[in-house]
Amino acid sequence: MSALPITTQPRSAFDAIEENLAHLKDTGLYRTFIPCSHLADDPGHALHMGRRIQVWCSNDYLGMSQNPEVIEAQISSTLRHGTGNGGSRNIAGTSEAHVELESRIAGWHHKARALIFTSGYVANFETLSTLLRATPELVVFSDGFNHRSLIEGIRVSGNEKHVFPHNDVAALEEMLAQYPLEQPKLIVFESVYSMDGDIAPISEICDLAERYNALTYLDETHAIGVSGPTGAGICEEIGESRPTFVQGVFAKALGTLGGYVTGPDSALDFVRSHAPGFIFTTSIPCSTLDATLRSLDIVQGTAGSELRRNLLENARRMRAALHDAHIDFIDADSHLVPVLVPGDMRVKRVSQRLLDEFGIYVQPINFPSVAQGAERFRVTVAPFRTPQQIDDFVAALRTCLDDE
Amino acid sequence: MSALPITTQPRSAFDAIEENLAHLKDTGLYRTFIPCSHLADDPGHALHMGRRIQVWCSNDYLGMSQNPEVIEAQISSTLRHGTGNGGSRNIAGTSEAHVELESRIAGWHHKARALIFTSGYVANFETLSTLLRATPELVVFSDGFNHRSLIEGIRVSGNEKHVFPHNDVAALEEMLAQYPLEQPKLIVFESVYSMDGDIAPISEICDLAERYNALTYLDETHAIGVSGPTGAGICEEIGESRPTFVQGVFAKALGTLGGYVTGPDSALDFVRSHAPGFIFTTSIPCSTLDATLRSLDIVQGTAGSELRRNLLENARRMRAALHDAHIDFIDADSHLVPVLVPGDMRVKRVSQRLLDEFGIYVQPINFPSVAQGAERFRVTVAPFRTPQQIDDFVAALRTCLDDE
Repeated sequence: MSALPITTQPRSAFDAIEENLAHLKDTGLYRTFIPCSHLADDPGHALHMGRRIQVWCSNDYLGMSQNPEVIEAQISSTLRHGTGNGGSRNIAGTSEAHVELESRIAGWHHKARALIFTSGYVANFETLSTLLRATPELVVFSDGFNHRSLIEGIRVSGNEKHVFPHNDVAALEEMLAQYPLEQPKLIVFESVYSMDGDIAPISEICDLAERYNALTYLDETHAIGVSGPTGAGICEEIGESRPTFVQGVFAKALGTLGGYVTGPDSALDFVRSHAPGFIFTTSIPCSTLDATLRSLDIVQGTAGSELRRNLLENARRMRAALHDAHIDFIDADSHLVPVLVPGDMRVKRVSQRLLDEFGIYVQPINFPSVAQGAERFRVTVAPFRTPQQIDDFVAALRTCLDDE
Repeated sequence: MSALPITTQPRSAFDAIEENLAHLKDTGLYRTFIPCSHLADDPGHALHMGRRIQVWCSNDYLGMSQNPEVIEAQISSTLRHGTGNGGSRNIAGTSEAHVELESRIAGWHHKARALIFTSGYVANFETLSTLLRATPELVVFSDGFNHRSLIEGIRVSGNEKHVFPHNDVAALEEMLAQYPLEQPKLIVFESVYSMDGDIAPISEICDLAERYNALTYLDETHAIGVSGPTGAGICEEIGESRPTFVQGVFAKALGTLGGYVTGPDSALDFVRSHAPGFIFTTSIPCSTLDATLRSLDIVQGTAGSELRRNLLENARRMRAALHDAHIDFIDADSHLVPVLVPGDMRVKRVSQRLLDEFGIYVQPINFPSVAQGAERFRVTVAPFRTPQQIDDFVAALRTCLDDE
């Protein structure tokens, strides 16, 4: 390669940016990524700077990304179809696996249509921004703890928006009641909230939606694969079919990549036809989708049910061990175990020591993922974790907290 | 699965959406995706409804997604690391391959830093929207033919924006000159424009940027892998190092998935720290990145140079054959061959007949990808196409056009 000079930082335009970065570093908010390459032959472990570490914060809730059948499906499909699709959905990038997976996902959620996006973030952002821009009279009611992808999708639309206090059905009703019945409305919320691990009152919100003429958009990202008899989420678990749109993801409990939205036929056909981040982007490789189809087979079946049982059992075991060790955590009714370690610098120090001394990796969660003062570890306890591993994790954490 | 009813379309909220879809169908703008599963053992071919067809519109310009070494790299990495990363970059989703690939990409473009995003679209959207929101005084000058990802990223920022006529340096200068020198400015443009196949006057634009105190953001998406001695793009080809930011993609000529931005260290560190679509999304699987690294090895070396020569030679051969057959095309100086078939319905009819009768798939490009009346086929001629295949393609197209 030729010896062109490295481009230097331009002079003045980015002064504010430099100051912000300095501020992040001063306050402990600056994020350092921990390189870790997950190891298929040793689930729950990864390579970090040449060292084998345990990972306790993955969203691969069921360990499906390391499942031998899913790996085999990706390999066969790579051999058959190559590594990429080479086009957008409209231009040579719709594989037969797209068609099959969209059909199966729609059926899984009992909706008329499903659309696959390159990520769950893009699914939320593009669906909400596209539908809201097309219906500017649609007033949005958004849960205060909603994921950033939902917030941004609503925000860029410019539609009127009200944020209701997290999971507060009474407050939501008060807001809905301010509008005439014929005013179109959309309630946007999640089923399982990742940072607290708590679950929305979905049926109560659907009751309100009926009473006040509102559509509903439900993000099931953290429940997909994990809840319900076939893993279709909290709606399946509680037998609730009323949400207008249900969003989900392949990149967490299904162990691959991508996200989707299911819902009414013409609304999603409109998104398919107009959402720029759906249209003008290369589609997910066939090999990833074939792996996803295989993962779905497993997750929907009896093997999936056993993984779900073990996951919840391990989360219970972790909560009991934390309780016995007098470690603060949020006692949520899901597979997520938030351990509270307030303080930007403190949570980083504890995380660093766990890694350095015990080979345990759990990422510190700080602002803007959670409020300042609510720093935490979001601990996930995969189905394959042993009681011994859980006890060792809690003992190591106790030691690090004691020395703070 | 339980027998919950299919959710029906909600009543009135989406009336406008229904009307729009009816309009698309009436005017020929409604898009139907053609399912095609690319075949690794028969490059340039795919399965479509059980039938083997030729694909003439892929963005896999060099056929790297079917390259045996790239396929092998994805398979080895899948065996070693599984099918997914199970986390965002900040939470257990930064693989060692991310670190290596970002370092190599930065070096390739002679920039201080590179950031990998889940797609080229997301790379453009997140980088522009995040930097512009942080520097609201930055006035944007955007080429009239810019890709939608650039347009949307600028649009949601709310920053002042001027669209200059496509590749018109004089008009751009007039716009820049309206502002005081100390006003921070950003010129956003592409190197190769996909729909016309033409190339920007990069150095003249960089001259203006110097003269008028502007930063530059250059999208090299369609040139990556294809132009320059090592495939780093048009800048490398012409020895131009001045663009502040250079954006590129893995999902086209490198044959995998994802996109990236390279540029100054703190600007991209700021994007890394604040861009929601970078932070709050699952990272690209390690296996895809390892395939990308292998593809990069090949593309940067002598094998890559030969692929580039054959690609350009085949594009020339296609243009000559179209010329001899009196078929309208844009005689661009790149690897892209836009064939003009004006009329929404007409371009669709020709495409359908090529597929049905000749097993040739070339997607009709219509509004909003191009202006109405400028409908076309965007033909790509991979390095492995034979003179016979090119002649057969042109003969089939001539037949279909004659009968219109």
